[in-house]
Amino acid sequence: MIGVFDSGLGGLTALCELAELMPGEDFVYFGDTGRVPYGSKSADTIIRYSEEIMRFLLGFGIRAALVACGTASSAALPTLRRKFALPIFGVIDAAAEAAVRTTKNGRVGVIGTSTTIRLGAFAQKINELDPKIEVSSVACPLFVHLVEDGFTAPGDPVTLAAAERYLSPLRTAGIDTLVLGCTHYPIISGAIAAALPGVTLISSGKAAADMLASALKEDISPGKKGTIRCFVSDTPESFESAARVFMGDIPLGSAEFVDISKY
Amino acid sequence: MIGVFDSGLGGLTALCELAELMPGEDFVYFGDTGRVPYGSKSADTIIRYSEEIMRFLLGFGIRAALVACGTASSAALPTLRRKFALPIFGVIDAAAEAAVRTTKNGRVGVIGTSTTIRLGAFAQKINELDPKIEVSSVACPLFVHLVEDGFTAPGDPVTLAAAERYLSPLRTAGIDTLVLGCTHYPIISGAIAAALPGVTLISSGKAAADMLASALKEDISPGKKGTIRCFVSDTPESFESAARVFMGDIPLGSAEFVDISKY
Repeated sequence: MIGVFDSGLGGLTALCELAELMPGEDFVYFGDTGRVPYGSKSADTIIRYSEEIMRFLLGFGIRAALVACGTASSAALPTLRRKFALPIFGVIDAAAEAAVRTTKNGRVGVIGTSTTIRLGAFAQKINELDPKIEVSSVACPLFVHLVEDGFTAPGDPVTLAAAERYLSPLRTAGIDTLVLGCTHYPIISGAIAAALPGVTLISSGKAAADMLASALKEDISPGKKGTIRCFVSDTPESFESAARVFMGDIPLGSAEFVDISKY
Repeated sequence: MIGVFDSGLGGLTALCELAELMPGEDFVYFGDTGRVPYGSKSADTIIRYSEEIMRFLLGFGIRAALVACGTASSAALPTLRRKFALPIFGVIDAAAEAAVRTTKNGRVGVIGTSTTIRLGAFAQKINELDPKIEVSSVACPLFVHLVEDGFTAPGDPVTLAAAERYLSPLRTAGIDTLVLGCTHYPIISGAIAAALPGVTLISSGKAAADMLASALKEDISPGKKGTIRCFVSDTPESFESAARVFMGDIPLGSAEFVDISKY
């Protein structure tokens, strides 16, 4: 069993990818819907929340974990890896590697929440891999809310206006590759692409799922169909309909409530 | 001493009003910045959080409390009043009374977070006071985030587009009075007024502060200067600059951290 967590439901985009790559594996997902979003909160608070979640997930006997959240990966990964003795994957390394492989002109953009951009982990990893790459980072805090509040239809004028506001400096910077450093952002990739024509978008959640699936072999009997169990920290009533936005066709069923601050 | 709380910093608009009306009174403010926002979360979760906060505030020996949050007032007031034996004011009654006094054509609009509008407490109170008033309610979940992410300059195109999207049905409904059912909304009253020309806006935080100040006498020595102490559930580093948006000229100083889930 593999544990996956996110501040809310954005990490389901990565879980969806993983479930396709490892169809026989069992997954347990935790979405911190009672405390979402993380992107405007401090690193200390995000570390505290992430430790509680890891303790909860370890109760299922998971053999690896994916922190499917750009903000939690940026703030908490080093602490989690030091405190918990199992392979813990984040979304930063895989996305940075994909960006370095993809760029032709050596100019890469990174977008994420306020805390993600302030911490700078994506840019730092890209420059560790290739110090000559010029990284331009922009915080786009409103994007998470545009996704969660349903401003996701193609051509939505509010989302297009926000994308234009946030992304025009990246157009000026001449980037050819953009890391979507938050697992919510693929849902509005249309508006992001409209503001940055010709730029290749890297989904950090998809890149991380690919990296995890190639690092860990599926440890299952042939033909076994994997299960997915979901937990949330708000009441789970609205989970099923909200999850459909992120999961596409994979049916998730219902989620269970957990009082995560007790862990 | 009087306790005031909100999901985050929006309630500071009400505290600011109160501190002006009761300059000799001591206040303790709690902003749940580690779990903000409440507006998309369930009533059960908001009740649980509000009870923790009340237990924390009671430790200061407060003689009354103001729930300076439209969502927490809508979800938790009856429970809080049943469980805690002190006067607890919310933002609903005062705003409903002000709206009923203000409307000339009997058509009143209410805007708030998703949970506030789903619970319908503002509309219910208005119709309790005057059943003939036609109430039109619209959830505007993005408004909180536009305020917190700084889309607050007059004429901001993203905020104007969002206001137009949310509020055009209220223009069609012909309202002459609009209740701002969330203590963040006064900060973008310019964009709201632009979408609803000629409509009188009622600030629920200001109305509640007026009601509390006239219900409770200041219990202090003449000439005493009141104090304000602030607590938050995220780290307090960014409190001072963020608070300035909501407090105007009243200096707040710094805030202290409290691990609120332990209460």
